Amino acid sequence: MVTETAPGAALLETHAEVLDAATHALATREFYSRYPESPSPRVYGENAAQDGQSAFEEARNAAYAPLADQPSTGEEVGAEVSPYGPPLGVRYPELDIVAGVAAAQAAMPTWRDAGARTRAAVCVEIIEAINKRSHEMANAVMHTSGQPFVMSFQAGGPHAQDRALEAVAAALVEQERVPASVTWEKPTKGDPIRMQKDYRVVPRGLALVIGCNTFPTWNAYPGLFASLATGNPVIVKPHPQAVLPLAITVSIAREVLSAAGFDRALVQLAAEGEPVEGQDGLAKTLALHPAIKIIDYTGGPGFGGWLEREAGADGTLVYTEKAGLNTVVVDSTDNLKGLLGNLAFSFSLYSGQMCTAPQNVYVPSGGVSTDEGELTHEQFAEKLAGAITAFNSDDARAVEILGATVNPDVRSRATDVPGLAERLGGQVILDARPITHPTYPDAVVRVPALVGVDAANLPAYSQECFGPVAFVIRTEDTAASLDLLRSTVREHGAMTASVYSTDQDVLEDARDAAADAGVALSENLTGQIFVNQTAAFSDFHGTGANPAANAAYTDAAFVANRFRVITSRRHV
Amino acid sequence: MVTETAPGAALLETHAEVLDAATHALATREFYSRYPESPSPRVYGENAAQDGQSAFEEARNAAYAPLADQPSTGEEVGAEVSPYGPPLGVRYPELDIVAGVAAAQAAMPTWRDAGARTRAAVCVEIIEAINKRSHEMANAVMHTSGQPFVMSFQAGGPHAQDRALEAVAAALVEQERVPASVTWEKPTKGDPIRMQKDYRVVPRGLALVIGCNTFPTWNAYPGLFASLATGNPVIVKPHPQAVLPLAITVSIAREVLSAAGFDRALVQLAAEGEPVEGQDGLAKTLALHPAIKIIDYTGGPGFGGWLEREAGADGTLVYTEKAGLNTVVVDSTDNLKGLLGNLAFSFSLYSGQMCTAPQNVYVPSGGVSTDEGELTHEQFAEKLAGAITAFNSDDARAVEILGATVNPDVRSRATDVPGLAERLGGQVILDARPITHPTYPDAVVRVPALVGVDAANLPAYSQECFGPVAFVIRTEDTAASLDLLRSTVREHGAMTASVYSTDQDVLEDARDAAADAGVALSENLTGQIFVNQTAAFSDFHGTGANPAANAAYTDAAFVANRFRVITSRRHV
Repeated sequence: MVTETAPGAALLETHAEVLDAATHALATREFYSRYPESPSPRVYGENAAQDGQSAFEEARNAAYAPLADQPSTGEEVGAEVSPYGPPLGVRYPELDIVAGVAAAQAAMPTWRDAGARTRAAVCVEIIEAINKRSHEMANAVMHTSGQPFVMSFQAGGPHAQDRALEAVAAALVEQERVPASVTWEKPTKGDPIRMQKDYRVVPRGLALVIGCNTFPTWNAYPGLFASLATGNPVIVKPHPQAVLPLAITVSIAREVLSAAGFDRALVQLAAEGEPVEGQDGLAKTLALHPAIKIIDYTGGPGFGGWLEREAGADGTLVYTEKAGLNTVVVDSTDNLKGLLGNLAFSFSLYSGQMCTAPQNVYVPSGGVSTDEGELTHEQFAEKLAGAITAFNSDDARAVEILGATVNPDVRSRATDVPGLAERLGGQVILDARPITHPTYPDAVVRVPALVGVDAANLPAYSQECFGPVAFVIRTEDTAASLDLLRSTVREHGAMTASVYSTDQDVLEDARDAAADAGVALSENLTGQIFVNQTAAFSDFHGTGANPAANAAYTDAAFVANRFRVITSRRHV
Repeated sequence: MVTETAPGAALLETHAEVLDAATHALATREFYSRYPESPSPRVYGENAAQDGQSAFEEARNAAYAPLADQPSTGEEVGAEVSPYGPPLGVRYPELDIVAGVAAAQAAMPTWRDAGARTRAAVCVEIIEAINKRSHEMANAVMHTSGQPFVMSFQAGGPHAQDRALEAVAAALVEQERVPASVTWEKPTKGDPIRMQKDYRVVPRGLALVIGCNTFPTWNAYPGLFASLATGNPVIVKPHPQAVLPLAITVSIAREVLSAAGFDRALVQLAAEGEPVEGQDGLAKTLALHPAIKIIDYTGGPGFGGWLEREAGADGTLVYTEKAGLNTVVVDSTDNLKGLLGNLAFSFSLYSGQMCTAPQNVYVPSGGVSTDEGELTHEQFAEKLAGAITAFNSDDARAVEILGATVNPDVRSRATDVPGLAERLGGQVILDARPITHPTYPDAVVRVPALVGVDAANLPAYSQECFGPVAFVIRTEDTAASLDLLRSTVREHGAMTASVYSTDQDVLEDARDAAADAGVALSENLTGQIFVNQTAAFSDFHGTGANPAANAAYTDAAFVANRFRVITSRRHV
């Protein structure tokens, strides 16, 4: 029973409309976005950009005060260095795990008993507050992930916020599918048997969100808000190199929860510095903590697989978004220019460091039919290389798409493409041109490279090559390309696949191959939609049907098991 | 696109009405039952009982012909012995696993592409056909589980069929929540961007259902039909002592699938004889088979825990229904007679061999207030013992409730209650009276026993004591009883809990304790509803919120992850 004075009650009306719109969009999967993706002053205010940057600069080289009220060991941690060069210097209070877990568990019953709709309204209030700080967030995301600024704003801000709202809407729908109460009446020979049955939604327990370096907010928000909206307190463990975006997020969540009458311990940040060689990182420690009942993870397949096996062994729910072999099948096109431009953008955006960026491009040895005539395999590869080169020809403009390479692992591949090609048994079609960032000379920026390999050289392209290197793979024909899509994605996973063909039969075959492989398919993208982008409320991110991810943003399976239903029944 | 000649299309109209009724019932959780629970000739036909028995007798001491078309090793297996005495003598073809898995996988694409609604209609057709053979099934269930006849009919027949229909309805709703297609239109400064997005439901892969001895159909159908309805072929691995009910089920499913134009390899039976000492049973072998993507299991916590840990480690979905400490908290009552009669029935029904049968009865040391005056703790225990004795006073009637003990493990406890009580440090309140079954003298039949223990003697009652023995546990007061409910169920699990109190505050506290423990609560049952029974479409069986089961029949979480959605998108 929600009364005027119940925690969060005031927000029910405030956010009723947005929740209606969001749940409607989720059911229809039509276009819907609540948070404007343009960083323009006309949208976010004249001073928003400057204020956001100032707030970011103020956080640097200082103790992070907004989280000072968390239970702390007294130590400070933080080792973030911007991929653009400078260390951030933010010092975060180290969470006292014992006290933090106890505080979270103590906060749970009130949050549980507030009910699904109140929780959803409070979550929307949190997201709205995050949205207001999108420019500050953009700076934080840029200088932790290495994304270019506009992408940091969009993917780290409004797009992530839309994904958060999507998770809240999905969680609300799922919890409200079970009625609160029913009168059950079983006919008998005499009077019917009548029972009242009350159904109570209860959370699983404490949830853990393990963030990644490249998309600290976009990939953390679905799990964070799905768990929180279903009644579970959340501990957020950011990547050691991408703490600030989630520190901002957590501090906002705690403020809003507290203002709404709930315990701020419902959301806590467990920051850590760079892991010490030979010691388990904090993610491992938390993942195996018996109080943790739900884990959401984005990152490499190694630790993701470990989480699925080891942390899941005691019944903990583990949702992972890992990586795989994102695939493009080129058969034919009636818009060569559009195809080349679209692919060049997809390779270049954030230097191929999206988990959705294409890596393996299958091109038949017999060449490609286009509206500009028949191209041999080699001609097509050259045209693709040329498109990438042309797209990134202006250094100052290029860095606003490429961003910076995020870590030494990516740099090791990007800075020696000939060596990489030789090791893999391929040929350099396009080397990775170095660009000196006009503002951040210490950033390592590379235009994406193309390496040619033969389809028979499976080891070369059947592992993820994260960053600005893609493979042009020579196949016997398009049927062979589709077979490789099917087999490699089934075995190694993929977040995305795309196909270019003017032949309806080929497109049908590609859809079947994608269904068999369990990967979403984009067809003939030649305009302003890119294979590496998914839209909240309409596109699923990941499918859960191949090894790249065991879950999708955001379907019913992503939320339905985060809570359980407890019945009490009695005669009436 | 479903055409007149598409497989299963003819059934779409036939079963549209029942699917509408079932999905409506599932949403409201109001009373709904499609399959009449009365074995009466007026319902099932004048000759149904005799025909059913004849069909059962014909199957005995023979090769099981209806499954002769399965891929077989050429060997025959089968070691069923009725808990009522006689060996069944049915010889089942041993499934050739390699050929069976290959056949199932080959059958999958057509089943997948038939679509959710056609699959649901075919599943209903299977259930309808099973219903027509309810009397045969009753005999098969009786002589494998040891259930009494009427219970075998109801729980093994119509109640199981209702649970099957519930799973089909839940699966259908879940699959249809995602639209088949949408036109997505993103506003831009110029023309909006328009894309068509098609959403295709794809199955996970091959599913395994591991049956149990006591409820071979009731506990197998939810998983079987949830997996099949979501597009997954199913291999059914029955308990070695309860094969026939699932052999009948599988052979019916195969007939109906084939008649509807699908491959009968979509459902296969993997029967085995008694496992050889030192060798892995067939369930283990199948559970670790890389082709198996979904497992549904009912049975003991030992193997269930192994499945969750080991079989789940590679991403296989594992749904388990195990066992725990079903709890009754007695505080006070305004209907002592009703309370005693209701509990006596719950203990007696199938000799306490239901996974939902009460085991731990918490009674305060200060006694119980009743409409027949204040009872001391000892007086209440004596009255409960007296009620069990009275309820089972007529041997011929008693065996029709008690059935037979199912296996040597149960018998070892039931036949030496004084020894059990001594080992546990308790006192015999009521010994388990032996009854000689008038028709089956070899059956081991026991009236349930009561053992008194002190709450401090936690080891005595914090393990499952499956079969006709319950504990009356002396607690300090009702608050202590509720604390024990909370702590023991959290740690050891429970399928059911119930409370008797005339005090609204106590009932509120009991609801909170049940919510904290994650167990469903029945309050003040004094009539013809029993704590060990759950109704399809209204009551969840299990909660998934305590160690007794990681899933519930049937909520969204039970079905939503058995399929995935693959998108294909293109500009329009």
